Amino acid sequence: MNTDIQILVDYLRQIRERKPLVHHITNMVVMNDTANITLGIGALPVMAHAIEEVEEMVSIAGALVLNIGTLTPDQVLSMIKAGQRANERDIPIVLDPVGAGATRLRTDSALRLLSELKISVLRGNGSEVGSLIGVASETRGVESISVAAEPEIIARSAAHEFGCSVAITGARDVITDGEHMAFVENGHPLLATITGSGCMATSLVGAFLAVAPDAFTATTTALMAMGIAGEIAAPKSGGPGTFRSHLLDAVAGLDTQTLLARQKVSFE
Amino acid sequence: MNTDIQILVDYLRQIRERKPLVHHITNMVVMNDTANITLGIGALPVMAHAIEEVEEMVSIAGALVLNIGTLTPDQVLSMIKAGQRANERDIPIVLDPVGAGATRLRTDSALRLLSELKISVLRGNGSEVGSLIGVASETRGVESISVAAEPEIIARSAAHEFGCSVAITGARDVITDGEHMAFVENGHPLLATITGSGCMATSLVGAFLAVAPDAFTATTTALMAMGIAGEIAAPKSGGPGTFRSHLLDAVAGLDTQTLLARQKVSFE
Amino acid sequence: MNTDIQILVDYLRQIRERKPLVHHITNMVVMNDTANITLGIGALPVMAHAIEEVEEMVSIAGALVLNIGTLTPDQVLSMIKAGQRANERDIPIVLDPVGAGATRLRTDSALRLLSELKISVLRGNGSEVGSLIGVASETRGVESISVAAEPEIIARSAAHEFGCSVAITGARDVITDGEHMAFVENGHPLLATITGSGCMATSLVGAFLAVAPDAFTATTTALMAMGIAGEIAAPKSGGPGTFRSHLLDAVAGLDTQTLLARQKVSFE
Repeated sequence: MNTDIQILVDYLRQIRERKPLVHHITNMVVMNDTANITLGIGALPVMAHAIEEVEEMVSIAGALVLNIGTLTPDQVLSMIKAGQRANERDIPIVLDPVGAGATRLRTDSALRLLSELKISVLRGNGSEVGSLIGVASETRGVESISVAAEPEIIARSAAHEFGCSVAITGARDVITDGEHMAFVENGHPLLATITGSGCMATSLVGAFLAVAPDAFTATTTALMAMGIAGEIAAPKSGGPGTFRSHLLDAVAGLDTQTLLARQKVSFE
Repeated sequence: MNTDIQILVDYLRQIRERKPLVHHITNMVVMNDTANITLGIGALPVMAHAIEEVEEMVSIAGALVLNIGTLTPDQVLSMIKAGQRANERDIPIVLDPVGAGATRLRTDSALRLLSELKISVLRGNGSEVGSLIGVASETRGVESISVAAEPEIIARSAAHEFGCSVAITGARDVITDGEHMAFVENGHPLLATITGSGCMATSLVGAFLAVAPDAFTATTTALMAMGIAGEIAAPKSGGPGTFRSHLLDAVAGLDTQTLLARQKVSFE
Repeated sequence: MNTDIQILVDYLRQIRERKPLVHHITNMVVMNDTANITLGIGALPVMAHAIEEVEEMVSIAGALVLNIGTLTPDQVLSMIKAGQRANERDIPIVLDPVGAGATRLRTDSALRLLSELKISVLRGNGSEVGSLIGVASETRGVESISVAAEPEIIARSAAHEFGCSVAITGARDVITDGEHMAFVENGHPLLATITGSGCMATSLVGAFLAVAPDAFTATTTALMAMGIAGEIAAPKSGGPGTFRSHLLDAVAGLDTQTLLARQKVSFE
């Protein structure tokens, strides 16, 4: 795996050139934002959840985003059907276990997806990911309140347990494939004031997965891009409402030079 | 009941300190805005409607918001299940009967929720609430077109009929618990130009219910906060699109001093 | 049919005077934007999809918008039930075949709606409409990638095939009733950078259908209004996020004088 930053930031150019389709089966709360941020980074979003069409849709996609933010048992079936087809075609999958730990339905559904599908990346907050590996934590609804372990430890354990890359986002994002670790210190506190900034980060992971050679560097670059866009948007904003608009402007305005100049990524 | 404004505005401080979870079973049209405004006021929103998880989710919540804006019969069953658990645990419920009067499904579902659950607050426009107590009115879709009675009279009748607090919002908001009356004259005409400003007000009622000792003053303070945020956002806005962003900024920027200085609340 | 521009732009005044209800059975991704743009142009949106209420809701509407962006088989049944009632009452219907050509479910559902209902206007991009008449095209998710024929030819063929007016939107919008052709050259590249600008155009078509005497001039005027609003919003915007807000401001700020001064409409 090559972690040369020059190579990583070039993924952005590749997204814009190839315009991969990113198939989402996702929550209703931030569906508009996740579609718009996917367009903003240069990929093409499609939100399609009917079990009758998900296999056909994912077959033409470059990546599949599964997000359980407003899940129902039926939606889980669509996710599994789409995911199996994606696995057959080597189309990478990112899973966002929104609210895992808050209810059994969410925890069990996330674990079922991790068990029945080959997931490339699991991205969540500390308590969501922690709850999936039995670390004591409190998820109040979809927010991480407290976790009884360090993000690095949770991420590494989850990567080993599920055999995939894991990203835990927060003030400092932690990404691991179980062996390598990356840290992204880009970002801004305003990101935590809007609903769905985690879901948006997951959609960016989907877009980068569609062009990058490995899940670990795809995820690192996606979270770097999200954090830098937040930094660019924040000084133009008067609060969460205007920040949400400027964030999308900033994502659409990103280029490889800006990523290179502003990145605060380190590897271990 | 203490209606001292100093005590009422202090609810805002308590929301920010305690960050209560506000569980929404709500419509898809403004789900993003209602989540963001709940975060903006300082509470934690969660949108969860699957019948398999609503009891568990509401058990960790400080309030339950039921909004029938895009209801289906299945969703009503989830609302009843969540509401019964909320009632068992003394978790307050606010009901927004969006479009009641426009179709039988909406009128009947709202009446069923009012009959099978102990609702703390019913918040709607004049024709929605009027339709629930048999006052002649015209609801065109989800908009109040005409009502054959004064808001005060409708609100008081509904409060007696349903045994809960009732708020009818408009240029002047009317709130009653059947005995006391409050009037909120804060607000701005731009609030009527965006979809879901009523739904957002209902979500704020949910947040205030989670900390306040009674439904009547919780609702009065929530509507005061909404109106004042509208007043702050309006001069920065060039129309409904930018107003929507500035409104969320303004809600997030509210503090008890601003509420105290700008409130136009009177009691009767 | 009178194609005098003075008469066409006057439809805007009529929408604002009559405030017709525009019933949407539509996708979850841009439901908020389509509701807000409908309000912005001066009509009243309602989003209602439960099969138990769609007949009753459409009966009080001035137009019905059917959009298959996140369709399910159940939703198609609601669309047919609502559409049949609309047909009985001579309430015009506009269909947006989002993603037709990408999956069989979407293509087949659009064709079924066109066959079982009397549709007034079909509005899509080139590949969506092309796929419905068997023109080779590539729809990547919901985006038009390539089409093997000119928009004029596809639109005219579709109008003959389905017996309705057809609009294909793009840098230059093409509208036809099978006999007359109109071209709208208003617009801005930023419109293509946000998700759902096509869906928003379709909602405006719904609003104009509710007041105009014929589908062809209603659609032409709606697309002119959308394009002009995009032109007004673009110079105020820093990217797709702020553009989305300014676009809604611009729609709400439109008046007949502005339409008349800025229109780039031609007829053939």
